[in-house]
Amino acid sequence: MSNPPTNNPKYKWIGTRPDRPDGADKVTGRARFAADFNLAGQLIGKVLRSPHAHARIKSIDTSKAEALAGVKAVVTSRDFPEQPDVIVPAGEMQVNLRDVTRNIMAREKVLYEGHAVAAVAATNEAIAKQALALIKVNYEVLPHVIDVAAAMKPNAPLLHEHLMTEGAKPAAARPSNIAKRIEFAKGDTAAGFAKADVVIERDYTTQAVHQGYIEPHATLASASEDGQVQIWSTTQGHFQVRGFCARLLNMETSQIRVTPSEIGGGFGGKTVVYLEPLAVRLSQKSGKPVKMTMSRDDVFRASGPAPGADVHVKIGAMKDGRIVAAECTVAMQAGAFPGSPVGPACMCSYACYDIDNVFIVGYDVVSNRPKVAAYRAPGAPISSFAVESTIDLLAQQLKMDPIDLRLKNAAAKGTKTAYGVTFGTIGMVETLEAAKNSPHYKTPVKPGFARGVAAGFWFNVGADSSAAAHVGEDGTVTVISGNPDIGGSRASLALMAAEELGIDYDKIRPVIADTASIGFNFVTGGSRVTFATGLAVVNSVRDLIRDLKGRAAKTWGVDPEGVIWENGMAKPAGSNVGTFEPLTIAQLAATAGKTGGPINGHAQLNVTGAGPGFGVHICDLAVDADTGIVTVGRYTAAQDVGTAIHPSYVEGQLQGGAVQGIGWALNEEYIYNAQGRLANPGFLDYRIPVASDLPMIETVLVEVPNPTHPYGVRGVGEVPIIPPLAAVANAVARSTGIRMYDLPLSPPKLSAALDAARPLMAAE
Amino acid sequence: MSNPPTNNPKYKWIGTRPDRPDGADKVTGRARFAADFNLAGQLIGKVLRSPHAHARIKSIDTSKAEALAGVKAVVTSRDFPEQPDVIVPAGEMQVNLRDVTRNIMAREKVLYEGHAVAAVAATNEAIAKQALALIKVNYEVLPHVIDVAAAMKPNAPLLHEHLMTEGAKPAAARPSNIAKRIEFAKGDTAAGFAKADVVIERDYTTQAVHQGYIEPHATLASASEDGQVQIWSTTQGHFQVRGFCARLLNMETSQIRVTPSEIGGGFGGKTVVYLEPLAVRLSQKSGKPVKMTMSRDDVFRASGPAPGADVHVKIGAMKDGRIVAAECTVAMQAGAFPGSPVGPACMCSYACYDIDNVFIVGYDVVSNRPKVAAYRAPGAPISSFAVESTIDLLAQQLKMDPIDLRLKNAAAKGTKTAYGVTFGTIGMVETLEAAKNSPHYKTPVKPGFARGVAAGFWFNVGADSSAAAHVGEDGTVTVISGNPDIGGSRASLALMAAEELGIDYDKIRPVIADTASIGFNFVTGGSRVTFATGLAVVNSVRDLIRDLKGRAAKTWGVDPEGVIWENGMAKPAGSNVGTFEPLTIAQLAATAGKTGGPINGHAQLNVTGAGPGFGVHICDLAVDADTGIVTVGRYTAAQDVGTAIHPSYVEGQLQGGAVQGIGWALNEEYIYNAQGRLANPGFLDYRIPVASDLPMIETVLVEVPNPTHPYGVRGVGEVPIIPPLAAVANAVARSTGIRMYDLPLSPPKLSAALDAARPLMAAE
Repeated sequence: MSNPPTNNPKYKWIGTRPDRPDGADKVTGRARFAADFNLAGQLIGKVLRSPHAHARIKSIDTSKAEALAGVKAVVTSRDFPEQPDVIVPAGEMQVNLRDVTRNIMAREKVLYEGHAVAAVAATNEAIAKQALALIKVNYEVLPHVIDVAAAMKPNAPLLHEHLMTEGAKPAAARPSNIAKRIEFAKGDTAAGFAKADVVIERDYTTQAVHQGYIEPHATLASASEDGQVQIWSTTQGHFQVRGFCARLLNMETSQIRVTPSEIGGGFGGKTVVYLEPLAVRLSQKSGKPVKMTMSRDDVFRASGPAPGADVHVKIGAMKDGRIVAAECTVAMQAGAFPGSPVGPACMCSYACYDIDNVFIVGYDVVSNRPKVAAYRAPGAPISSFAVESTIDLLAQQLKMDPIDLRLKNAAAKGTKTAYGVTFGTIGMVETLEAAKNSPHYKTPVKPGFARGVAAGFWFNVGADSSAAAHVGEDGTVTVISGNPDIGGSRASLALMAAEELGIDYDKIRPVIADTASIGFNFVTGGSRVTFATGLAVVNSVRDLIRDLKGRAAKTWGVDPEGVIWENGMAKPAGSNVGTFEPLTIAQLAATAGKTGGPINGHAQLNVTGAGPGFGVHICDLAVDADTGIVTVGRYTAAQDVGTAIHPSYVEGQLQGGAVQGIGWALNEEYIYNAQGRLANPGFLDYRIPVASDLPMIETVLVEVPNPTHPYGVRGVGEVPIIPPLAAVANAVARSTGIRMYDLPLSPPKLSAALDAARPLMAAE
Repeated sequence: MSNPPTNNPKYKWIGTRPDRPDGADKVTGRARFAADFNLAGQLIGKVLRSPHAHARIKSIDTSKAEALAGVKAVVTSRDFPEQPDVIVPAGEMQVNLRDVTRNIMAREKVLYEGHAVAAVAATNEAIAKQALALIKVNYEVLPHVIDVAAAMKPNAPLLHEHLMTEGAKPAAARPSNIAKRIEFAKGDTAAGFAKADVVIERDYTTQAVHQGYIEPHATLASASEDGQVQIWSTTQGHFQVRGFCARLLNMETSQIRVTPSEIGGGFGGKTVVYLEPLAVRLSQKSGKPVKMTMSRDDVFRASGPAPGADVHVKIGAMKDGRIVAAECTVAMQAGAFPGSPVGPACMCSYACYDIDNVFIVGYDVVSNRPKVAAYRAPGAPISSFAVESTIDLLAQQLKMDPIDLRLKNAAAKGTKTAYGVTFGTIGMVETLEAAKNSPHYKTPVKPGFARGVAAGFWFNVGADSSAAAHVGEDGTVTVISGNPDIGGSRASLALMAAEELGIDYDKIRPVIADTASIGFNFVTGGSRVTFATGLAVVNSVRDLIRDLKGRAAKTWGVDPEGVIWENGMAKPAGSNVGTFEPLTIAQLAATAGKTGGPINGHAQLNVTGAGPGFGVHICDLAVDADTGIVTVGRYTAAQDVGTAIHPSYVEGQLQGGAVQGIGWALNEEYIYNAQGRLANPGFLDYRIPVASDLPMIETVLVEVPNPTHPYGVRGVGEVPIIPPLAAVANAVARSTGIRMYDLPLSPPKLSAALDAARPLMAAE
């Protein structure tokens, strides 16, 4: 690892790097992912998916499939009740229930290739597939539209006849594919641009990319005759699976018990439901457990990727580098139903900087693609790519060091953002300085390579968490929470519990409980778990300590106020209290029956005060002039991480995010053919970076504690995917002299640009 | 059902009879019992058991078994660390850890036929069995002793060379099979007998009987390389499985997660561990999950039955029926290791009655039988059989109605027992009167039939319970506790939660969480769950309501004291608080995020104040003079049940206990051959009553609320097994004129007695 342990002298456990509690099971193959769950007598469920990008469903005849021996249930949209036109939270994004039921199962129309049309449950997979082939769907194929710009045109094929642009100025007169217009403004950009010494204005595009989680969606559902349902699922939020299934099936949350599997990646893409309501309905109809798994093809065609977008940026600055006006317009793919992350894309676009005059407009645009889902810092990498590319142009034009230019404009405590928030204690300046002082930045660029720099911002979120801490008879402690552990959160939660309790990390077992065993928890997303669920754990342990001190007081016959907790032991607060030998947690546990019964602590809260995070990435790369292949030679991610509870997993977040961002920049994209069908639904044609593609990502952890958290935690998982897009593009621009405005910078595109530029370059 | 709903006007839900939450899954076969759990790659574990009743293990050679292809692990006592000579609670009984490790795996000696000697884990059952045959155990067979009287003789074969009788008077000079002598005394029995008008003195014996649970012991264990272990098991106490495995394997409780299956009966027999530590050790050695199940043969030979005993009773009474002196001596089988329930047998013997002079002695005696386990009201049926038979003799001699005689002596509030407790509010008198006024007792005995009556007493217990109540987003509630549900406790807990919260029963989902998801809970046993865990549930719901009122107060901007909770809604406490529409739990749940996050309530406590229970049973039966076959024509169980939370399940407890007691009286017994081997280890030769053997058992619920519980709950599950032994024997005595002193009153024994008596009877 590139960083030494964080030797924070304040702490004994926080900042250390013990093995993660789920580590052994994950490396030995013992960990159970969703497809590892099975029940006796289970059926196999399969989904019939639309071959068309856009078509009206005139009729569905399932009779032959139902008649096939071994088929136990068939469902279509008729099996799911209509839902109200109501927006509900889905992970870090918002969805409309009326749309959600149409996304899990097409109703009037299919809106993208891969859209679910029917599902069957049969005694084995072969029969299930045979049954799908027997379902006759009568489609009226409609003209389709894939890209944002085309979808926004007045005469574009219309996906939703009822869709009137929310927030349009003036109010929308007729339906369109533009679901929403949003606007954020601060100051007067016209005045700003008027006084600017230099104004740069550019257009950018990015393509839809998939989160690329290794584990496809999978679920097992078992419905009982009394209306109770059990679900095993790979998800970032089992409470959200419960909530969505309850709404989509007109059930009550208490009737549904969801157990999350270990999760083979999610990155935002597992905060929504696809298979779960189908499996439940098939189980209800068949009376048998139903198991459903997506193929990789299904995942690409029918789960939600991150959107592509068209972005327009205009920045005006003074000669000294001070940015005096900034505008940004983001038109973002929502996929088949409204709800792209255009909001956060707009809000994050200029949040790294303290600019007096800002004007940002966003459009949420539907087209015949799968409904987009969250992907690490949803929306932010896209706007940031455009803004940070433009700032790099500015640095080039002003001949300023790109970090110095950003330092000149950096947001700091007291900066008011365009979306209305005034920052508290943040680390943008510290992160820029750490990047500037990093071994990487201080090392001259190797011959043949060029260096790009970019920054990024993410809010981070808090929200609802419940936790509990239970003392066993021997004084060891189980810490219960309800967020699937993706990035090592079990370890981070246990470290905080160990620090609070004053006992060893290995005496604490962190457990992720199912929906029936712990109170509500919002999704694992928004970089909230170590922060918000961490706070719930800290509070539950404090509740435990309060109880433990009471037990000691009872044992000694003194007032509870006369007892302090120190190094895992109850001690008299002073000599006036009396002379008593300290009582360890094990000793207090051994006599728990006599002092009041089981020793448990609890906490539940809606956590606010999430600390925003800032990242600055440095990318050294070389471009092969013949093939357009980019070789990343060195890459460093510096980030304002708050306190690094478990530095290895913080570094892992920075490394993973950077790699995903590099893939987004260089290779990843959804490619549609003329029929609106996805041409590359697999990891051979959709190219994510693998270990051999990249150097070890170096990290610089900038610890600016979040003052609203007892251990100074900030979310760290989203920020690192934001800067790479521009860091890579900026390095390519500085390497080749060619500024690429359209992602990805894939070999075909880059070699074409190089070829186009070559005569010109030769002529110069 | 024989009883109408308990229309307690105080309550809306308590006293009603909704379906049990686990009902549908149990009747459809969907419920998962222990043998229904499987993991990929699991091995099958099998136990090699001793063919000898008593032998020294000179050597064990497992090398050939280990070399067999497919065998992945072999364990013997060498794989289990020595344990200290420390007594720990095991369900309702106490066990010595030094003995427990020897009971799960024989160490120096085998002490009973069926005693585990080694265990193997192999890729399939056939290989596992083959491997058992390849293990060579070199035994030195020793003389054995089966019965109590023989085991107590000075020259009896000695099971434990170190065993000195605890509590002996005078102190034991040399080791024996008598582990302990206990004594309870009140008043002066010599003086009492001196003034008595009539003294009756008799000797009785009872045989060991099995709990006869339908589901054999089964477990699945998976140990990870990092020391963590998961166990799935059929048990009455998954926290006890965790605790025992931790101790027996030198692990920490937080390293072990135990998930209880649905349980196919336990009756006390599933409060100890047999297979679980073996499966864990085999899994640790093999690196694979290991599944183990007992055959019925294994269950009979190697799990703990209830003991048999020799009981001596002497009762002195005045002519009017007042008992003035009572003595009882119980010599009880402990099985191979000390720890019979002779304590409760002694304590319960005379607890139904208010007697001035009582003297009770008990002996805990080891012999070459499986270590006994708890079985409903452990010990009490045995002493009660002897005492209640003697009281029947007294009634006959005094020509008193047997209920009137008992009313004359009945314990009541203020009665001090021989074991030192003074009763609070109890229902012995009410139960006797209810029995006397029952339709059954008021109906003349049918020709050919005779009627017997007997009473019984059980303390009931409280102990440690944890519970939680979580509100879902839609206002439905999950109630979490940690006691396996045997007799309908989920329904009872949900009813109390519904009553407290003022919402419908079907809006509440009671869940039994694993050891990692809820705080410590003592076993399901001692008739404690509805009482003690019920109190934890009530307190957790009260904690929830406190929180809900706070949310309403926050919403209205008033003091929390200004809010009351009524009919599932928060309301202003009075007009002075302000005019606000009531807020339902669903409304408060919908805004939970804004008012403080998730809404959860919690409670954990060591519950005291269990209300004792009394039962009076009436049995009409006929005896076939030729075959000795007993036909029970009518049977009624009256009992002081406190408040019947769910009357159907209270009735079910009374019916089930009565049936088991009738089986104990009439047919059940462990039969050993001359080699000390069990001759009847199966349900064909060990005859438990089936539905066709018996009439519907009538019940009379006598509701004398327990004042220490908010809903007046008393335990109800133990008492009903106590009276049947004497009720049946008393009816047989009145039917045949022959008093049978030795159970069971099986056809061979009864017909022999009838044959022996016939010439005499003919002569009369």
